[in-house]
Amino acid sequence: MKKEKPVALMFDVFGTVVNWRGSLIKQLQKTRLFDKNEIDVPAFVDSWRALYQPSMEQVRSGKRGWEILDTLHQESLQELVRSYQIGPVDQGTIRELSLFWHRLDPWEDSVAGLSKLKVHFTISTLSNGNTALLVNMAKFAGLPWDVILGAETAGAYKPLPHAYLNNIRLLGLEPSQTMLVAAHNDDLQAAKSVGMKTAFVARPLEYGPNQTIDLEPAENWDLIAGDFDDLAELLIP
Amino acid sequence: MKKEKPVALMFDVFGTVVNWRGSLIKQLQKTRLFDKNEIDVPAFVDSWRALYQPSMEQVRSGKRGWEILDTLHQESLQELVRSYQIGPVDQGTIRELSLFWHRLDPWEDSVAGLSKLKVHFTISTLSNGNTALLVNMAKFAGLPWDVILGAETAGAYKPLPHAYLNNIRLLGLEPSQTMLVAAHNDDLQAAKSVGMKTAFVARPLEYGPNQTIDLEPAENWDLIAGDFDDLAELLIP
Repeated sequence: MKKEKPVALMFDVFGTVVNWRGSLIKQLQKTRLFDKNEIDVPAFVDSWRALYQPSMEQVRSGKRGWEILDTLHQESLQELVRSYQIGPVDQGTIRELSLFWHRLDPWEDSVAGLSKLKVHFTISTLSNGNTALLVNMAKFAGLPWDVILGAETAGAYKPLPHAYLNNIRLLGLEPSQTMLVAAHNDDLQAAKSVGMKTAFVARPLEYGPNQTIDLEPAENWDLIAGDFDDLAELLIP
Repeated sequence: MKKEKPVALMFDVFGTVVNWRGSLIKQLQKTRLFDKNEIDVPAFVDSWRALYQPSMEQVRSGKRGWEILDTLHQESLQELVRSYQIGPVDQGTIRELSLFWHRLDPWEDSVAGLSKLKVHFTISTLSNGNTALLVNMAKFAGLPWDVILGAETAGAYKPLPHAYLNNIRLLGLEPSQTMLVAAHNDDLQAAKSVGMKTAFVARPLEYGPNQTIDLEPAENWDLIAGDFDDLAELLIP
């Protein structure tokens, strides 16, 4: 890392801070609708997440106007419910199930690591999640953010440059005064391109037991950490 | 109050949560520039604040484009330094002094009251301050916000309706699910007009020992509290 430490640590959230896949599986498995339809819940969750990037790409590319992630999650779920021939499912239920994304469990080290880092740095989200989703998740999971930033406050989805730059400007900082912490090499690549510092934290179970991507840092990022405790040790003298 | 409790409590900050006048006086009195020029610091602070509404009105009225409060504070200070014939003062010093607004002390009951309320409600700022100002103040004063909202996230200054409505939308809520907590009757009036619940907290020393305004609630607001401990007692069963 260049000698100067960042002022703000900005965290990718889905996968980096919270275990979205495990948490959604747990919640959906308890849902009567999925139980009685004998749905393969892990496969369903993977299908739901598979629609994540395509749904954002519609907005990023300008093919459609701005929509928050809650809406994209709902639309993707509606599409899946149709293709899995689960049904009929009313809009209220679709909405309720999509709010499962607001109640994701943190990785074991997340809360303790963030709490340590918060003493020395401004800690913020830098997520494609909308503000309400991130606020509700923080209250559910006990994540001690100083400030909630993301696609909605930026008006742009990562990895577009303005998704990073608009949020950095909200903090009154230069990109070089900030560090993105993420478990995803492509997110770090985009952050580096706009001048942010970068920290890779491995989350080898994010995509389940057979994960093949993002097991290792793809580049010599400024910091490489095993978890948030490790990150705190690297950053705090 | 209508029977349903709010989901989110949204707080005016300057005057309601922090003692801006006392804190600025304390900081400026320690500043060599003011000491050697024999400036009447309390009068100077009152003059600085007197330029607050006019500076925002330029933006609200559309006479000028969007500017964050940090910029307006700097411009007002520059104007005052000229009229007080303090000088010469370079831009770096002007900027540094204007950042005194990022380091304001909370009222004695603010941190404890907010901490209690945070267990039961989403607690957010709803301030004309910009995001960086509010984040830095929260870290300085130990204010445990769930989320930082204000003029910058709304793109509008209070009391314009969108300053409230855009931030409520970021929380994914309806106005009736939110409550503005403020020491200022005009702020509560604007909040009520857009459908928010309202709580008045008296801050009789905000403007110093000779305060004449906002000593009493001007209307029968949903809640009327002596301080944040009192507010917590009224809201938490």
